[in-house]
Amino acid sequence: MIKSPNTELSPSDHETNFQGNVVNLVQPNWIGVDWGTTNVRVFAMSSDGRVLAENGSNKGMGSLAPGDFEAVLLDLIQLWLSEDKVIPVIACGMVGARQGWKEAEYRLVPCLPVSDQGLMVVNTRDKRISLHILPGLSQRDPSDVMRGEETQLAGFMKMNPRFQGTVCLPGTHSKWVSISGQLVTGFKTFMTGELFSLLSNQSILRHSVNSEGWDVSAFLDAALKSVENPDKTMSELFNLRASSLLQNVDPVTARSTLSGMLIGQELGMAADFWKKQTVALIGANEIASLYADTLVELGIDVEMIDAKEAILSGLSCAAKL
Amino acid sequence: MIKSPNTELSPSDHETNFQGNVVNLVQPNWIGVDWGTTNVRVFAMSSDGRVLAENGSNKGMGSLAPGDFEAVLLDLIQLWLSEDKVIPVIACGMVGARQGWKEAEYRLVPCLPVSDQGLMVVNTRDKRISLHILPGLSQRDPSDVMRGEETQLAGFMKMNPRFQGTVCLPGTHSKWVSISGQLVTGFKTFMTGELFSLLSNQSILRHSVNSEGWDVSAFLDAALKSVENPDKTMSELFNLRASSLLQNVDPVTARSTLSGMLIGQELGMAADFWKKQTVALIGANEIASLYADTLVELGIDVEMIDAKEAILSGLSCAAKL
Repeated sequence: MIKSPNTELSPSDHETNFQGNVVNLVQPNWIGVDWGTTNVRVFAMSSDGRVLAENGSNKGMGSLAPGDFEAVLLDLIQLWLSEDKVIPVIACGMVGARQGWKEAEYRLVPCLPVSDQGLMVVNTRDKRISLHILPGLSQRDPSDVMRGEETQLAGFMKMNPRFQGTVCLPGTHSKWVSISGQLVTGFKTFMTGELFSLLSNQSILRHSVNSEGWDVSAFLDAALKSVENPDKTMSELFNLRASSLLQNVDPVTARSTLSGMLIGQELGMAADFWKKQTVALIGANEIASLYADTLVELGIDVEMIDAKEAILSGLSCAAKL
Repeated sequence: MIKSPNTELSPSDHETNFQGNVVNLVQPNWIGVDWGTTNVRVFAMSSDGRVLAENGSNKGMGSLAPGDFEAVLLDLIQLWLSEDKVIPVIACGMVGARQGWKEAEYRLVPCLPVSDQGLMVVNTRDKRISLHILPGLSQRDPSDVMRGEETQLAGFMKMNPRFQGTVCLPGTHSKWVSISGQLVTGFKTFMTGELFSLLSNQSILRHSVNSEGWDVSAFLDAALKSVENPDKTMSELFNLRASSLLQNVDPVTARSTLSGMLIGQELGMAADFWKKQTVALIGANEIASLYADTLVELGIDVEMIDAKEAILSGLSCAAKL
């Protein structure tokens, strides 16, 4: 997901003409929206899928009531709108959750990651836009859900139409996804990112880990150990606290070790997804690199895909539906 | 550990004599102190180990600087002190941590749970008391530490001098302890209680679990499943969120399931401690009962020991050193 908020409009988005009226220089064919729990990002798109301008804020779904969304969206895209035409807006992510703008019910796998089924039309007060929200995907047994990742998957599959194998989307709630014959056939969510954040910031371990710096080899050692024995990871967490008290283990080393233990545990538990499969990793951040580094060390070939590129490609698929 | 704070003095602790002076009815032989991270509890003890009076507050180690401890202690015990004698005060728990009143360095296992080695004498400004802090125990490989539990162990072993086997002390950081020939020979800490608290109150799962009510069979089903496959527990956490979204699983059931998953995971990872050993559980609260219920279901005989009784017995051992 795209994390860096940017509330500034580019100065090239508009200018004032000789009569003193504002003229929009950006005239998108459609607008793409990636609306997560903590951020929203909007893209003015050309008909051939180029980004003409972008904008964003930290007004994620988590901080908004259903009635708030339209004003937040209009504030971000107003300079791209015209009085004389209706611009399609395609949104994905938590905006379609039950607590979002309007619920777009999950589509059950196996299915295409994005299709016209379940695309939620939302009536807006402002008639210059025509809003559609993409539904997430669900799995019955074991129960699982995703919202937003399906759009990245659609984008990735558009760029790699013959792909068969596993796609991993690391993050707060990592997803491991099986792709076969253009369909998402199954997936599994791990709470690794959230667990790391809670343990390193809020648990007793916070006294032993440092938020600055990185120890590459401590990370990798711990990750490889946990991949082999994911059943032991949770029983070894407190060792980090004890080693810090008894052996003065460096807090940077301890933090990298904790990260390695948890990512290694996930990889160990997700082994069926990568052991005999081609693996593609969708991610833009350092976290995705940590997954890739560990998998490469395990002898697995990994293809890295930029998350922003994937989501724009996915939104473009949806815009053509 | 004793969790319920009680800042009230018993009305029987003192009375006013005919001259209007306060007369202390409680004249302890010594004073026991259980000073944890979040609470402190003090006991006025007779020479034969009876509790004459008790007091406490929520001024745990976590909220105090080293210079604060003496005033907090005096405030709790002042009505038990006399001008004409020095009363021994024996304290255990986080009061002896590096961030506590004064550090009492860990004693390395194998060793007696409590001995005169490492007993830290603390000079107080008030000369009516003579303060000793009990050190915790440490283990070298794998690194582990305890503070406070060693006193409960000493008390338990005094009550059960021939005990050989495992003692489990459930809690925020559960301890599994091997006892052989009067010695603590090794131990292991699990962060289960803290993990449950973080996941149920702060993670995405908080939307799916409820803080009221209890589903006994959901707990036990989840616990027994996790005991068998502790390596799967962490990969199944997000199912709780998805089942709540897709199948409207009752939040009381979801909470009991989460608790069962985590306690079962701990029991599964700690199986070497209980599979072929006699098990004693020291605990006063519902959490200890959950461990006991699961172990009994697994066909393990469990002896339950009251935590307060154990700690008072342990402090009595130390008072006689």
